[in-house]
Amino acid sequence: MRVLVTGAGGFIGATLLRLLAARPRIGQRPIERLAACDQRLAVLPAGVVGIEGDLGHAQLQERLAEFAPDVCFHLAAVPGGAAEADPALSRRVNLDASLDLFDTLAAVKRGVGEPPPVVVYASTIAVYDHPLPDLVNAATPARPPMTYGAHKLACEIVLADHTRRGSLDGRSLRLPGIVARPRTPSGLVSAFMSDVMHALKVNEEFTCPVGPEATAWWMSARRCAQNLVHAAAMDAAGDAGRSWVLPVLRLSMAELVHTLSTVYGVNGERLVRYAPQPAVEAVFGRYPLLDDGAARAIGLRDDVTPSALVRRALEPDYEAAAEEEGWR
Amino acid sequence: MRVLVTGAGGFIGATLLRLLAARPRIGQRPIERLAACDQRLAVLPAGVVGIEGDLGHAQLQERLAEFAPDVCFHLAAVPGGAAEADPALSRRVNLDASLDLFDTLAAVKRGVGEPPPVVVYASTIAVYDHPLPDLVNAATPARPPMTYGAHKLACEIVLADHTRRGSLDGRSLRLPGIVARPRTPSGLVSAFMSDVMHALKVNEEFTCPVGPEATAWWMSARRCAQNLVHAAAMDAAGDAGRSWVLPVLRLSMAELVHTLSTVYGVNGERLVRYAPQPAVEAVFGRYPLLDDGAARAIGLRDDVTPSALVRRALEPDYEAAAEEEGWR
Repeated sequence: MRVLVTGAGGFIGATLLRLLAARPRIGQRPIERLAACDQRLAVLPAGVVGIEGDLGHAQLQERLAEFAPDVCFHLAAVPGGAAEADPALSRRVNLDASLDLFDTLAAVKRGVGEPPPVVVYASTIAVYDHPLPDLVNAATPARPPMTYGAHKLACEIVLADHTRRGSLDGRSLRLPGIVARPRTPSGLVSAFMSDVMHALKVNEEFTCPVGPEATAWWMSARRCAQNLVHAAAMDAAGDAGRSWVLPVLRLSMAELVHTLSTVYGVNGERLVRYAPQPAVEAVFGRYPLLDDGAARAIGLRDDVTPSALVRRALEPDYEAAAEEEGWR
Repeated sequence: MRVLVTGAGGFIGATLLRLLAARPRIGQRPIERLAACDQRLAVLPAGVVGIEGDLGHAQLQERLAEFAPDVCFHLAAVPGGAAEADPALSRRVNLDASLDLFDTLAAVKRGVGEPPPVVVYASTIAVYDHPLPDLVNAATPARPPMTYGAHKLACEIVLADHTRRGSLDGRSLRLPGIVARPRTPSGLVSAFMSDVMHALKVNEEFTCPVGPEATAWWMSARRCAQNLVHAAAMDAAGDAGRSWVLPVLRLSMAELVHTLSTVYGVNGERLVRYAPQPAVEAVFGRYPLLDDGAARAIGLRDDVTPSALVRRALEPDYEAAAEEEGWR
């Protein structure tokens, strides 16, 4: 089968691309051709087709139509902070270009009896308003508090409509913050969730903008990529809405620091100075319980234990191929 | 103030335009200029500015920006059946052109301290999936079963985001089927709801595609227009979602036929032959109870009584200006 990853130059996209290149299968079906699309692409794994350009340009959409993927992972997006600062850019990329991509994929001619392309869409938990209720479940209303989440939610709705029509087979995953992003300045307020992990791994001091009791939802990029691949393979027919919040580990900052201390033999309690900023705590320090039963039932998974989260997030070689095989 | 009506050539739009022309006020504020926009416009009430063209064209959007409305009623849309038959057309008009309109209105320069333009958006109860739950309330999830509803819901979300940003002041009303449409073939499956009213008023026989027990939500075009005007004037600040289902009269077909018989002195029980079509009943004959408390609390209203519904729907002169004054 033919598989396309948009946003393949990004943090999650690159992780997904490496996983697919190393293990070229979707469920039981082998991947014959794998394409990576982004505005700019770094060196790609061997055999991966690179498609560079702007999703908002018709020529690029034509190239994607020519590639004619059986499965598309759509990750390309303007991130939350940038979207909030420039809603016109967010509309162009996160909304219009995404809807164009859906239409492009839906319009590719298929053989008789051939199923429509599978689209795994990287949505966001930012479709939910703050403050979150004490328990997030399938009945929690989506009411996006930022332009990023509003445009992602609109795409979910249009993708679900394509699915209903039979023109695409969509699966939207609402991703939490994913760790551990590289230690380069990203402008993301949530960068501290990754930075604290990098700092403690190498025994550095860290000033934390949320307190020790602050709770967040955690997932490693590797596990996120595994979930995206699983989402492409799973039987999703039973869910009309076609949107799932991923299962997550819900950990307080103190629990995370304790785990990092144990895994890397450092004194995290000494290294971390808590300097809570109310605005940061309000958004990134109050994640409630999550009823992820529907996502688990369909085979999606969290990182299982805090120490596995930490090692999967920080050690690229943590998981041997054999472990990967058994991840489900 | 300056007021714009899009879709002013349509059934509800024309009713709204007549109401605004006869009673040029939004709440306490007088309307100084009133503009009607549609692809084609019939003869307009005196003093109304006509703006003909396609909302999807940049030149038309520029003309709307020049008009710079303080209040825009956005009713222009490809109807449900046509949207389902041509989803690309629905995307162009119901989604893209609507979002363009929001961006156009948001970009109009305002004076210092001047509030953003009010946008009253005609959404639809077709954002809800079938079968509806036994009670529809604020917690009922929106999961559109047709492309029309999907695109309308996406617009609601983007309009609510404009409201959050302060670039527009949006109010989305989820309209039920509105009666009584003209007796011209419309291709609407729900046309029977209007046709039965026209037939019994003039003592004609009618074959009804739903049974006597079938329940539907009813509202006259006149009351709908009044609600749209009220939505522009009301203080909506308390509701983050900015979407309301209008209060409605929930009547069985037998109740409606009885009302028509009483109001027009005909024998409806003899004139109407029930020939239920399961597909029509499933969509238009199973409307459940509606918890419209939030909409009522903010001053939106139904037609009050079945006989008032019938007369308001069928008799243009039913309501004298004096009654209009007291409608709230």
